[in-house]
Amino acid sequence: MESNINMAEFVQEFQDDVWEDASVEILENMHIQDIGTILSRVLPDEAMRILQMLPRKRWVEVFPYIALARQTELLELLRVKDGRYILTHLYPDDRTALLEQLTPEQLESFLRLMSTEDVKLALKQLGYPDESVGRLMNTHFVAVKAHWTLKHALEYIRAHSLRGETVNTIFVIDRERRLKDAIELRDFLLGDLSDRVESIMEDSAISIGASEDREEAVRLIKHYDIEVLPVVDHHQVLLGIVTVDDVLDVAEQEATEDFHKMGSVGVLDLSLSDASPALLYRKRVGWLVLLTFVNIFSGAGIAYFEATIEAVIVLVFFLPLIVASSGNAGAQSATLMVRALATGDVQSRDWLRMWGKELLVSVGLGVTMALAISWIGVWRGGADVGLVVALAMFCVVIMGSMVGMLLPFILSRFKLDPATASAPLITSIADVVGIIIYFTIATTFLL
Amino acid sequence: MESNINMAEFVQEFQDDVWEDASVEILENMHIQDIGTILSRVLPDEAMRILQMLPRKRWVEVFPYIALARQTELLELLRVKDGRYILTHLYPDDRTALLEQLTPEQLESFLRLMSTEDVKLALKQLGYPDESVGRLMNTHFVAVKAHWTLKHALEYIRAHSLRGETVNTIFVIDRERRLKDAIELRDFLLGDLSDRVESIMEDSAISIGASEDREEAVRLIKHYDIEVLPVVDHHQVLLGIVTVDDVLDVAEQEATEDFHKMGSVGVLDLSLSDASPALLYRKRVGWLVLLTFVNIFSGAGIAYFEATIEAVIVLVFFLPLIVASSGNAGAQSATLMVRALATGDVQSRDWLRMWGKELLVSVGLGVTMALAISWIGVWRGGADVGLVVALAMFCVVIMGSMVGMLLPFILSRFKLDPATASAPLITSIADVVGIIIYFTIATTFLL
Repeated sequence: MESNINMAEFVQEFQDDVWEDASVEILENMHIQDIGTILSRVLPDEAMRILQMLPRKRWVEVFPYIALARQTELLELLRVKDGRYILTHLYPDDRTALLEQLTPEQLESFLRLMSTEDVKLALKQLGYPDESVGRLMNTHFVAVKAHWTLKHALEYIRAHSLRGETVNTIFVIDRERRLKDAIELRDFLLGDLSDRVESIMEDSAISIGASEDREEAVRLIKHYDIEVLPVVDHHQVLLGIVTVDDVLDVAEQEATEDFHKMGSVGVLDLSLSDASPALLYRKRVGWLVLLTFVNIFSGAGIAYFEATIEAVIVLVFFLPLIVASSGNAGAQSATLMVRALATGDVQSRDWLRMWGKELLVSVGLGVTMALAISWIGVWRGGADVGLVVALAMFCVVIMGSMVGMLLPFILSRFKLDPATASAPLITSIADVVGIIIYFTIATTFLL
Repeated sequence: MESNINMAEFVQEFQDDVWEDASVEILENMHIQDIGTILSRVLPDEAMRILQMLPRKRWVEVFPYIALARQTELLELLRVKDGRYILTHLYPDDRTALLEQLTPEQLESFLRLMSTEDVKLALKQLGYPDESVGRLMNTHFVAVKAHWTLKHALEYIRAHSLRGETVNTIFVIDRERRLKDAIELRDFLLGDLSDRVESIMEDSAISIGASEDREEAVRLIKHYDIEVLPVVDHHQVLLGIVTVDDVLDVAEQEATEDFHKMGSVGVLDLSLSDASPALLYRKRVGWLVLLTFVNIFSGAGIAYFEATIEAVIVLVFFLPLIVASSGNAGAQSATLMVRALATGDVQSRDWLRMWGKELLVSVGLGVTMALAISWIGVWRGGADVGLVVALAMFCVVIMGSMVGMLLPFILSRFKLDPATASAPLITSIADVVGIIIYFTIATTFLL
């Protein structure tokens, strides 16, 4: 036991480009997931060396746990017949994950290694939209017919549960392969063997369409606490299954996407450590330039109030404080809303209730911040400047919070991703409006 | 099937305070998870009315799917003997989740409803640290002894697998209850019934300590693709189990925490829709005020360069553009790093490699942004202003990116949470440094 934990720690911290200690004996005692991690981290040639220490049968087990980019590299380094062996024996969903990130040329050469039937299956799965359930599902599954006897069904299951996939839930289909029910293996075992399957059906299966968003699969599996979710087409024909460990990965990827969007970074298809500088540049430059255009309005706002600034130069001292507080308050409320909308904690129709709550919160925050800054205002510029900065702070904190709270709702209303209301975007918008509010108040009271 | 999907949609959009249609028949055909959702959303009295339509046996099934705050309300509304029934029959992990969010007074009155043995168990679980595996684990599990025969073990499992918990993985312990292995039920069924359990052991179980962070449980379950993770104490004694659906919820909560931190919001123990305005105020005001102190340095920076500003007032126009770009670039790289550190994609020892990559990316971004702004500079203030703003933009974009990239690493180095390097904090720091860089360059070239 202990050796396993140490091994896991060893693997997690494994950083070397080569793995001197690799030997057939050590590999035999390692978990395939750990071998996969190491094969992803060492240099390509080293990975080949380690892979070849493994019996070919284990390649197929290890492969899904290797980083996708490395899987491709290995397949290109392996002899044709070894590549064919792996592509033939991978689970369809693991194969689809590998194929979907290839260049068209690579895809063509890989498809040439596969049987016609596998190619047809793979192309069908790749035909489903990006990030859909169809791309994610495993098409290897066991289903029994409703008119069979339990005895026949159990024999069929025993004969067809290949490669150690655990079968706890048994899917029942009719003669047209339409999903009729999902029955626990336990209930099967408790029934009379001569009964027909349909006699123990409850017609209570939760299912999902293949073209639906994979986030919906996460939601269903989480909500209904199920281990295997059946995937169907428009006619309820059973196409595949999605398991809880699939959605664990999806949930992490989706959260990462939302994170990146909140930081105004485009969606990375690769992990940060695999992404090239050029890719990172492309994913960041668009938003940076776009936000500059928003900030030009801030500049224009300041230029418009040049006379006020020249008359009361101390106002510039408070500019970053006031403007930044507005942006910070906005970033806070945008973050809360975007995440709550993503997890389903809040729905877009809740906007009015959330708006009321946000108003209360932001008035409280505005009063606190105004009190905090008024002292500095009085100290730096006298009572009238103190009043102006306090009033401006009160207004911009409320305004920033409102922008941050409402923009995600507006985006989701127009079927856009609420996470587009990123912290930098909210900050930039709050800047523009904050500058205008601040100098308008200053001009009114001080000139 | 279809009716189920519509029901799920109905429940997701369910918003009413009362549920007129509630009837014994409808409730009978609903999934317990959906009933739980509705009981969480209607008014407390209404929830009581619906609950009482259910047979008492179903209460225990539905209860874990009701929002925690509502569970408490219902227990307080129910008659003592009904409350006792629920608290006695809830799974220990569900009960712990309920008990850990009570006030001391509530806890005392609830503990009084429970048997001495249950109280002992509950207090033991509450004794583990917040967000530890011990709080999360289920202490109802079935384990067999290594020296038993397979026949005896299977009989024991059949007799002790209560309340429909599926048993796919069987934990093997020795005479001192120390975990020896985790064996698939399948391997059990294939073995010879007269063999001893130890004869089919492989000693390959992955386990976790009860006081470890629950995030580590998520990592292990995800990495090793396991459905049930055994929890042990310092002597490897088996204490409980954590299942993949538990960690699915934990992973979501942890991602939400990181989100909130990235937006400079304190950790909310409640969902956003349950949180009161007062709680939200408290979770936000600290960071807002703290960030103001950082921004005072921005103000001071501007005040320090007052002479430069008065001499070349057009510089103020570019102030928000340059300063905001620095903050935006910093927010981008901080977001990328914080998330990569959280998912384990990047470890803190990778900082040098990531720094090199970030330098390349930020030089590229800096050149692009400098070119973009130089035109506006020339147009608004002539060639020399164009040069100054371009140079300043180049420097601040690189500087902002460096701050955003390095701060999460520094925090993780000092065992602090990298997510503390929130977008608003990075923006505020980048503001201060950006202002100093900008006006230093301007003073050098223009005065």
